[in-house]
Amino acid sequence: MPAMKWWGWGAEGVGFSHEDKPALGPFIKDKIGVDVRAKGAPPVAFNELAIVEPMLPEELRADLEEAVGARFVSTDALDRVVHGRGKSLRDLIRQRSGDLPRLPDAIVRPGSEEDVTAIMQAALRADAVVIPFGGGSSISGSLQAPDDESRPVISVDVERLDRVLEVDEQSRLARVQAGVFGPHLEEQLGAVDYTFGHFPDSFPHSTLGGWIATRSSGMQSDRYGDIADMVKGLRMVTPVGTLVIRPVPAASNGPSVPQMVLGSEGRLGIITEATVQVRRVPEQRTILGYLFPTFGDGVAAMRELAAGEYSASVTRVSDAHETQFSFAMRVNPTPLDKLQSVALKAYVSRRLGFDPERMCLAFIGFEGSKRHVAAERRAVGRLAKRHGGLCVGAGPGVLYDQKKFDIPYIRDFLLDRGAPGDVSETATTWSNLMPLYDAVMAAANGAFDELSVQGYAMCHLSHSYHSGACLYFTFAFKGTSPGAMLGEYDLVKSAIQQAFVDNGATLSHHHAVGTEHAQWLLEDISAPGVAMLDALFEGFDPGRHLNPGKIVSREGLRAGPPV
Amino acid sequence: MPAMKWWGWGAEGVGFSHEDKPALGPFIKDKIGVDVRAKGAPPVAFNELAIVEPMLPEELRADLEEAVGARFVSTDALDRVVHGRGKSLRDLIRQRSGDLPRLPDAIVRPGSEEDVTAIMQAALRADAVVIPFGGGSSISGSLQAPDDESRPVISVDVERLDRVLEVDEQSRLARVQAGVFGPHLEEQLGAVDYTFGHFPDSFPHSTLGGWIATRSSGMQSDRYGDIADMVKGLRMVTPVGTLVIRPVPAASNGPSVPQMVLGSEGRLGIITEATVQVRRVPEQRTILGYLFPTFGDGVAAMRELAAGEYSASVTRVSDAHETQFSFAMRVNPTPLDKLQSVALKAYVSRRLGFDPERMCLAFIGFEGSKRHVAAERRAVGRLAKRHGGLCVGAGPGVLYDQKKFDIPYIRDFLLDRGAPGDVSETATTWSNLMPLYDAVMAAANGAFDELSVQGYAMCHLSHSYHSGACLYFTFAFKGTSPGAMLGEYDLVKSAIQQAFVDNGATLSHHHAVGTEHAQWLLEDISAPGVAMLDALFEGFDPGRHLNPGKIVSREGLRAGPPV
Repeated sequence: MPAMKWWGWGAEGVGFSHEDKPALGPFIKDKIGVDVRAKGAPPVAFNELAIVEPMLPEELRADLEEAVGARFVSTDALDRVVHGRGKSLRDLIRQRSGDLPRLPDAIVRPGSEEDVTAIMQAALRADAVVIPFGGGSSISGSLQAPDDESRPVISVDVERLDRVLEVDEQSRLARVQAGVFGPHLEEQLGAVDYTFGHFPDSFPHSTLGGWIATRSSGMQSDRYGDIADMVKGLRMVTPVGTLVIRPVPAASNGPSVPQMVLGSEGRLGIITEATVQVRRVPEQRTILGYLFPTFGDGVAAMRELAAGEYSASVTRVSDAHETQFSFAMRVNPTPLDKLQSVALKAYVSRRLGFDPERMCLAFIGFEGSKRHVAAERRAVGRLAKRHGGLCVGAGPGVLYDQKKFDIPYIRDFLLDRGAPGDVSETATTWSNLMPLYDAVMAAANGAFDELSVQGYAMCHLSHSYHSGACLYFTFAFKGTSPGAMLGEYDLVKSAIQQAFVDNGATLSHHHAVGTEHAQWLLEDISAPGVAMLDALFEGFDPGRHLNPGKIVSREGLRAGPPV
Repeated sequence: MPAMKWWGWGAEGVGFSHEDKPALGPFIKDKIGVDVRAKGAPPVAFNELAIVEPMLPEELRADLEEAVGARFVSTDALDRVVHGRGKSLRDLIRQRSGDLPRLPDAIVRPGSEEDVTAIMQAALRADAVVIPFGGGSSISGSLQAPDDESRPVISVDVERLDRVLEVDEQSRLARVQAGVFGPHLEEQLGAVDYTFGHFPDSFPHSTLGGWIATRSSGMQSDRYGDIADMVKGLRMVTPVGTLVIRPVPAASNGPSVPQMVLGSEGRLGIITEATVQVRRVPEQRTILGYLFPTFGDGVAAMRELAAGEYSASVTRVSDAHETQFSFAMRVNPTPLDKLQSVALKAYVSRRLGFDPERMCLAFIGFEGSKRHVAAERRAVGRLAKRHGGLCVGAGPGVLYDQKKFDIPYIRDFLLDRGAPGDVSETATTWSNLMPLYDAVMAAANGAFDELSVQGYAMCHLSHSYHSGACLYFTFAFKGTSPGAMLGEYDLVKSAIQQAFVDNGATLSHHHAVGTEHAQWLLEDISAPGVAMLDALFEGFDPGRHLNPGKIVSREGLRAGPPV
């Protein structure tokens, strides 16, 4: 897997286009006042970047080269720029304008756990900082060295640790190296008819180690669990040796050490390997689309689904705003498609009494044996009907499934046109979902008003649990000027995040803390919770060599993310 | 719920009897050479105990009385003895012989979270030690002050914090005070048709706070989850204020603080409240008995069950030794019972070819709608049959369900007769279950041989997960003399625990660490794991006021539990 673009999401040459989506241009013009045909504002050219020379003491360089071999120690300018930060919207805006961070002084690519240990020891000897790097897809500022870091900074890119080492078929466990990317992991497991079943939107560009370090969640979490449920054993190189958590299904051995590693964002060490739960590739897998009269109806259906004797693999309900966006995203509809679409709209509005402005698209996924899937479909169909839902078949689900990994590219497409667009997600209880939704939408729209910009906010529910679910918000607006964009973005993003913690929800369901969300940690887990994390990080890494400043950052807690 | 006996398990006047179990006496005589009719060796009388005066500085007493009211500050001798330690076998042997621990100087019973805060502040001002107390059922030495503790020791008994404060029916969450005992919790939830579904063997004598502090697991964990899965929100009084974890179904907000509180055994604070997931009382609930030709067949059936499209609430397979014990435990069989039993044995041995010495009893529980239960029964019946299993109906399951909370009393019954009997449990992967089982049985029997005692070890599998299960061992032997019993017990118990960690398993699946298991922590979670726990405890409680010496204990790690 080649590294992503230095200035944006995904592979060079791949991007988002409106040209095959005839309804999208008018939709964007209408909602945020951006003309998609207008010439974009491209990133500055790479050769215009002011890249400072790496600060790599000769002894440290020699130690690193001895650790991994000279060809795996890089001080290449592009490599350093790519590894300097992640892909938060703040990162993208800054990279595009040539505003580079404190770059790492070297990128080191270990080929084994022994290599990682040698790197760690070399870094400690040289009083250097170590930042692990997986796919570089972080959108919470977890990868960037502090601006004023005066010690050498080593980015440890684990891309060579990419193998499935063993599949224990009796226990349905796979021992996997941490640097494997999503598609390569599924390919290796698929060869023996297994699947990991973890499909976050970042899947093509993120790694197992990154998922663990950020507490990731994938679209099929309803069936497969969040990454925190899927990891059974762990290996992590730390300043005091290699942490070895043996694979056991559950343990009562004190506060959970694996649950400290999960979400640790490099602050405790470099994850080298995990033993994860895997499942047989299911005989059948399908995602069905449903229309509900309102978002509230769809949410109520998912709430009932989560409590009952069902076993959906995917649950997702878009609000009316996101539903309209989804309809506008349709690729090159044929005349027949259009006819069906018109007929459907006529049917749901005239026969079922749906208000086209309020109706909501939902997806429910099923998998397993054919018999199981058929039984689930029938039972869930009856449930959806009780909430006014109409099944619209497998077509929209197939489309959603194919296109979901393309969604992150839209941010670059919009930035090209001077419009910041981003996401913020959270989780809360079922009883708090609709009040929270209303509060967050009010906060986002209030922020647009405060800025006097034309903005659009939309939301979906996904990842259902017995007691609640994730709400995932997407927003975009037309910035007033390139220079003002970052501040304007920050105001909207902060309004949304603040609404989360002000209304009983968490700062993130699966995007981690990093530096982006650190200012809301105190309100999320209270001062004693922050003190526990602080005790752990400071006590375990008193020299602050491990990705300092992330999650708990005194600066972050005081001042919020740097604008 | 009155406190348990000062010298043994359970309520005064309740005990285990062999008299209604005609086969048990001969079984015990045969297996460990103990004559159940022989006069027992009772505990010393309470008035023979040498109880040192409490060391409670006047100012601390005054502060505590101001915090909770004078009637809730006790220095009563019996109260102090009951709160001085838990109910590990080591505890029982010592209590019975009058060998008391460092007793708490006062027992304080807060009526609110504010009371707990006032107690904590008073204790910190007085440089006192605080040990939370729920039901006192710990069997891992989590409740006892260090022998050489020179500061005042306050036992904080949370029994008055016993209310279900709120049931959020939409989210299926209950906000519950930490001191509620199992039966009282189910009673309060049952009144509104909900259940928590957590039924550890200690259920009548343990509390929600204790379950959380020790990472407990109940017999229906296959459906309801372990306590670590069931807790969504938490409140805990700490030296730096009240930790408040809001109830969310999942979060990506750094290393999991709730998962640090789970299993913390009072080392981070006093849990006052939790928001836990609850479920509607099921329409139907049943536990069916099955006979399998061998333990391996039963285990294989459970392994397949855990991977498939089933949803059992209970899975349990006894090995042949425990199966024979179960048969010996039958209460007053009628002539018809006996006839049925003989007929069953004849049927399984002659018609099915089972070896009566090797066959194994298993239980599988089902619950939900009648339709769901019926479908599960059929599907699981077919699965069991594929592994040579025979369904023997609901009778044994009803009996098991009624009697399971009586089992802990057997230890006192055996101690009365000079025979130590105890349990050790662990968890491992499916592929490692049978090798581990063999290794542990060899270790136990090797220990009996080394001591030249007649001993019996038996085991069951319970708590199935996708990737593995719990193995629960019970052992008993005839001690050579009262004075030698503790050392002999320690040798057997240690051999079993050592076999766990030597063979890839964890030191405990649901009995916690305390001081009993602290010496195996390093081998279980490796040195960096211990260093993380140490960083957390030492950094968060640098004055070591919170239940010092538990889980990570330098003394424990060096020398093992004190014999």
